[in-house]
Amino acid sequence: MKILKDRIIKDGIIIDNRVIKVDSFVNHQVDTALMNKMANEIINRFKDNKIDKVLTIEASGIAFAYAIASLLNVNLVFAKKEKTSNIGNDDVYSAKVFSFTHNNENTIVVNKKYLKNNENILIVDDFLANGEALKGLISLVEQANANVIGCGIIIEKGFQDGGRFLRNKGYHIESLAIIKNIKDNQITFE
Amino acid sequence: MKILKDRIIKDGIIIDNRVIKVDSFVNHQVDTALMNKMANEIINRFKDNKIDKVLTIEASGIAFAYAIASLLNVNLVFAKKEKTSNIGNDDVYSAKVFSFTHNNENTIVVNKKYLKNNENILIVDDFLANGEALKGLISLVEQANANVIGCGIIIEKGFQDGGRFLRNKGYHIESLAIIKNIKDNQITFE
Repeated sequence: MKILKDRIIKDGIIIDNRVIKVDSFVNHQVDTALMNKMANEIINRFKDNKIDKVLTIEASGIAFAYAIASLLNVNLVFAKKEKTSNIGNDDVYSAKVFSFTHNNENTIVVNKKYLKNNENILIVDDFLANGEALKGLISLVEQANANVIGCGIIIEKGFQDGGRFLRNKGYHIESLAIIKNIKDNQITFE
Repeated sequence: MKILKDRIIKDGIIIDNRVIKVDSFVNHQVDTALMNKMANEIINRFKDNKIDKVLTIEASGIAFAYAIASLLNVNLVFAKKEKTSNIGNDDVYSAKVFSFTHNNENTIVVNKKYLKNNENILIVDDFLANGEALKGLISLVEQANANVIGCGIIIEKGFQDGGRFLRNKGYHIESLAIIKNIKDNQITFE
């Protein structure tokens, strides 16, 4: 999506060869006009699918997921991160998610009331890198015997393994900008 | 706001005399149609004010804040919670926020780039009880020498002190439902 790639080049802050910060328009300050355009683009890419609900994970996926769910006029559900493992809590679906960014493991949970058998779920997040968060969210949907329609992502780091792994598993992944590499302070898109 | 009060009575889950859960439509699953109606109502209540930006705190305020900011076509900023105190980090405004719900203290931060001198800021959150989160957010805005236009809240617990304290200080607080008390499994609104 050209408008997003241009914005990443203009306002993204390259930290190193693997990390780029987009907190001026995606995940700390949020440019709502851009976000709504990106939401429409994701909806267009999944236009052949019936979507009953949008699922994301707190906190930085919520704005994007809200924009999509609102335009589709469906409910949004955001999985919560918990420090304590929720094993033994029968009220929730849970999955473990390792964060390479923070070098820690979270348990993410969704109350069983909010993911139902046979619902068509679009999963959404701001970043896709190693795919740990998406794998956790997919697990929650599949525990509920609901259907993963696909995953809508703002920025995918194509040089990390998550996208390839999930596409090889057959999941429909749509990323609005895929970064091929970051070298010598330059971003190249696929 | 009648539609919200009706929904709280229909779907809110009373935990005890002080706690009501609305996670089926506000802060775990989000009813986007209701959220957009509530966002329009908040905008209407602040219609005499110029609003440059909407500020909230992760995670459960983000959907409501996004709905309002998107309708106003302005940016949203969400303050982040940090475990470590950010004293000595010159890049951020920070404030300490005690959570009575979780019985812990968080430091909330906003990068100084995203709150600017003289900007008109509408602060938004899902709940107002003791007012700790709002006091922290107000502090961030005032550290930036920006202007607190007011605070837009979904549910205020009128039986706790936050709303009274902040109104006495002269802040313009608008809450879409103010709970007077919860007794014998019955909610009474002001």
